[in-house]
Amino acid sequence: MKCRKCGHEAVINMRQHKLALCGEHFLEWVPEQTQRFIEKYKMFTPDERVLVAVSGGKDSLSLWDVLLRLGYKADGMYIGLGIDGGVDYSNQSHQMCERFLSNLKSQMANVKSETPGPGHGDSGWEPTLHVVDIAEMYGETIPDVAARTTRGRSKPCSVCGLIKRHVMNRVARDGGYDVLATGHNLDDEAAVLFGNTLAWNAGYLLRQAPVLPADKPGLARKVKPFCRLYERESAAYALVRGIEYIYDECPFAEGSTSIAHKEILNQMEKDSPGTKLQFYLSFLRAREQGLFAEHAGQVELNACEKCGQPTSAPGLCAFCRLWERRRTDALQIL
Amino acid sequence: MKCRKCGHEAVINMRQHKLALCGEHFLEWVPEQTQRFIEKYKMFTPDERVLVAVSGGKDSLSLWDVLLRLGYKADGMYIGLGIDGGVDYSNQSHQMCERFLSNLKSQMANVKSETPGPGHGDSGWEPTLHVVDIAEMYGETIPDVAARTTRGRSKPCSVCGLIKRHVMNRVARDGGYDVLATGHNLDDEAAVLFGNTLAWNAGYLLRQAPVLPADKPGLARKVKPFCRLYERESAAYALVRGIEYIYDECPFAEGSTSIAHKEILNQMEKDSPGTKLQFYLSFLRAREQGLFAEHAGQVELNACEKCGQPTSAPGLCAFCRLWERRRTDALQIL
Repeated sequence: MKCRKCGHEAVINMRQHKLALCGEHFLEWVPEQTQRFIEKYKMFTPDERVLVAVSGGKDSLSLWDVLLRLGYKADGMYIGLGIDGGVDYSNQSHQMCERFLSNLKSQMANVKSETPGPGHGDSGWEPTLHVVDIAEMYGETIPDVAARTTRGRSKPCSVCGLIKRHVMNRVARDGGYDVLATGHNLDDEAAVLFGNTLAWNAGYLLRQAPVLPADKPGLARKVKPFCRLYERESAAYALVRGIEYIYDECPFAEGSTSIAHKEILNQMEKDSPGTKLQFYLSFLRAREQGLFAEHAGQVELNACEKCGQPTSAPGLCAFCRLWERRRTDALQIL
Repeated sequence: MKCRKCGHEAVINMRQHKLALCGEHFLEWVPEQTQRFIEKYKMFTPDERVLVAVSGGKDSLSLWDVLLRLGYKADGMYIGLGIDGGVDYSNQSHQMCERFLSNLKSQMANVKSETPGPGHGDSGWEPTLHVVDIAEMYGETIPDVAARTTRGRSKPCSVCGLIKRHVMNRVARDGGYDVLATGHNLDDEAAVLFGNTLAWNAGYLLRQAPVLPADKPGLARKVKPFCRLYERESAAYALVRGIEYIYDECPFAEGSTSIAHKEILNQMEKDSPGTKLQFYLSFLRAREQGLFAEHAGQVELNACEKCGQPTSAPGLCAFCRLWERRRTDALQIL
């Protein structure tokens, strides 16, 4: 297989695009595509401050890399979940993020010293990694919180998602970021859409988008610049670019519905390349063309009495109730 | 496995309903369920005349059987497609329908002579089978028409569907039937919904329902009384009831998308019993609760200039154009 652009040996063949590329041209193609999606879905402008949620995995580190190379002012945020799972999962993930940043900084320093004049780093701005350790901040790891709550007892994923969303919002708000970017790729988006479609869950269906506007004061816009990039493309980007990332999935993800849905979509994609992309894009198109009723799935949101983040519940949001319950339990023990 | 109702050996275990039944109770359960769906979706009343489209397969013959046993005035209609496929497919199918009717009539005659008083047959009404042979009526079999049209060249299924819909409408209208019933089961409905959802096809999505109202004068309402019955349940009904049916799928169905979608749904159903039913029912529920915009996917329909049936095209409908083109071709040959 030859690269469509230069005829050299291709490193990836993207059947759904009928496009094979060599390493060099693939490393150009991914940022070009990302920039196209950022503009198409009006995600953010070069003036805005972006916070990238990084997990140490291929998607989020590749995204951070791409955004920085595209010249965006993108800082990272790592959330330490305190998950071990026999593979020291959280610590390894954290290390990958730190290593990525220090490698990148030394590359940027080299670029800076080699090429005087306009370019990266001239504004004096340097990318930062914010680290929030859940256990340090709230006194318990994710597995601990999950174990003592009904929501998390069978599987910590729901509690983990809730906590991560809250923390990401808080760090973005406190840091004055305009935009919160996550590394969700097409496989993630298609699998979530698939699950929400199987259940015809109006609320979730209609909230899935490349951009979620900041509809409450103090909240950052949420964007997914990789939403049209296949998982294997983002993995290939990390490999070709030489980004080290954590290969392990979260130990708790095993057997999850979203993984089962990904497998089904992979099977359909194999039989008919482009299935996932068409599924996701035709959903976005149908919504844009007015398939859904305007007020379908809308939920009234209030500010949480304690943290101020939007919640559909009256009084405290689900996040604050997690810790409130713990305090009550502790008082009962006393 | 024991029958939930009587403790005898069960013939079927319906995992999605957590219900196992013996032959006798299963033969009661299917008509009860069908009656429940007929009422729930307001399909038809005992006074209305029903035309059942029968193909010689398990679903449509079981449906006709169930409707007659429930006391509905249901006639059958068989459309001879002229498909051989090495298995004499159309002739075999036709024979199955005729044999079903003659068996049923002799059973009804026995019931009549044994049980004087009110019951089946007292009104003097007897079920009829209307037979329309496409080649006799229009001069060409389905494979012939398909072979000379762009629409049918790669696969005759689209042309076949178009012709069957037209003929069913015509027979229902000419015979003064209120309702046209088809044997679509849950597996069919879920697979069609799945395909339309993968493509987010607004028009098709919103037209899928247990009941399609007769929205043009002279058209019969279309209903699917088995829409919530799994394929294996309708097959089991035919087997236990002793209905002979044609086991072969249509020879042209092989490799079709809808069969591929059925396989995927079967796989999900195996991992999580009830998936298909939940998918279909939650779609109906979401629509009822206003998920979709009121006018989404709506198409302006006119009466075809030639046959009067509704069409989205100006002038002739797609069915009449099929034969018009043939006439033009014939004239060109002259």
